[in-house]
Amino acid sequence: MELIKSNTSRVALVAGASRGIGLALVNELLMQGDWHVLAACRQPDQAQSLINLRKEYVDQLTLLSLDATDEQSLANFKQQCLQHCQHIDLVFNTIGLLHGPDLKPEKSLRQMRLANLHSIFAANAFAPILLAQSVSALLAKSSQSWFVSLSARVGSISDNQLGGWYSYRAAKAAQNQLLKTLSIEWARTQPNTCVLVMHPGTTDTDLSKPFQRNVPESKLFSAKFVATSLLALTLSKNSLDSGQFLAWNGELISW
Amino acid sequence: MELIKSNTSRVALVAGASRGIGLALVNELLMQGDWHVLAACRQPDQAQSLINLRKEYVDQLTLLSLDATDEQSLANFKQQCLQHCQHIDLVFNTIGLLHGPDLKPEKSLRQMRLANLHSIFAANAFAPILLAQSVSALLAKSSQSWFVSLSARVGSISDNQLGGWYSYRAAKAAQNQLLKTLSIEWARTQPNTCVLVMHPGTTDTDLSKPFQRNVPESKLFSAKFVATSLLALTLSKNSLDSGQFLAWNGELISW
Repeated sequence: MELIKSNTSRVALVAGASRGIGLALVNELLMQGDWHVLAACRQPDQAQSLINLRKEYVDQLTLLSLDATDEQSLANFKQQCLQHCQHIDLVFNTIGLLHGPDLKPEKSLRQMRLANLHSIFAANAFAPILLAQSVSALLAKSSQSWFVSLSARVGSISDNQLGGWYSYRAAKAAQNQLLKTLSIEWARTQPNTCVLVMHPGTTDTDLSKPFQRNVPESKLFSAKFVATSLLALTLSKNSLDSGQFLAWNGELISW
Repeated sequence: MELIKSNTSRVALVAGASRGIGLALVNELLMQGDWHVLAACRQPDQAQSLINLRKEYVDQLTLLSLDATDEQSLANFKQQCLQHCQHIDLVFNTIGLLHGPDLKPEKSLRQMRLANLHSIFAANAFAPILLAQSVSALLAKSSQSWFVSLSARVGSISDNQLGGWYSYRAAKAAQNQLLKTLSIEWARTQPNTCVLVMHPGTTDTDLSKPFQRNVPESKLFSAKFVATSLLALTLSKNSLDSGQFLAWNGELISW
């Protein structure tokens, strides 16, 4: 393994890169041409879309293995990154979990289970802050850098009018508080890193698939559209904006 | 075991009743005279303060065993309550965790550990909503009832200026979102129950002990003062106020 050769290209890390918004972000960054992309997911050797992209962008794309719910994997991940780059300019965390084979968002209190709280918080709340801890030392300190993570508008407590989805809502609120706290620490210790949490809108991915029925077509975005929007929004922000909760269109969301 | 005999007395359940604000609430409710109090803690047979109170208020106080981080204990707890009362008018959850023998609130990102996130979220975020689930069927439906839980101003995301205390801040934010969601569900399904989350102020208890050094004396409250204030505040509220985040003095706190 070698260090990234081009000194002119910036380095972006996408976590949760094998599908959905993460994969679309990898695509978008590669198409822009001036990025080297570290694409992290649990099983890169089974991530066919990334493997295909790697054939096309052999010098620009590195696949890395990461389970951000596991501290040992996160510790190994830092070492993996160090083998490929000396610094990272942009971290984009797209890891999220809303449903699974034995996991549905709660429609009511009666459906609440401790095991579901654990799974939903591991992915949506704990993974983002543990990832930040893992890559903290790698983030560029002498130029503007970004740590961005996908939250969701349903994580807003003040905006909660409909109820339901207990675990997911609360885990995103917890993530918001963890990353707000991070933005305060980094404003003191690494002021060139801007921390942002973002609401992507309802995006046509596996995560939203079971819940798309009542979404009007004009409000169901393609992953490509969302990736382009979120990336442009990120790069328009600097450290003065750190700690913001932003929708895909730049609208500030209340906590 | 017998059902509570007096039909005139109201029933209050205090969770986390063995010490601190919970114990002070039990005392306050007993002194008011018209409450029967269910005092729940992990090991009631070792809770000497409660055992002493029980000698004085033999007809008014019932001690119950509850570990609100354990689903089996929560299921048993519902059955225990049913042996003593047919309904509950007021639930006051005071369970909280900030530090322990191997647990300190994080001063910086580098101190973040997954095991600490698990402990802090179990007590401060998951316990309150699982307790609500456990006692939901018991809460009075035909008259005003209350489900109140201790949160903390440091759980407010918009009020977070200082940073630090990552897990505790985020777990309280998660609790706020869980109970806001609960208030929305119960407004539809059991509209006579008012859900409130409260900031008690810095109170002279074991929880705040290691952090009292920089608190001015006038801002360090006795548990008795806080219990009296929170109880009066609770009883002044009705279902129209459900879903509020309130300081001990009635001030509304932003999320």
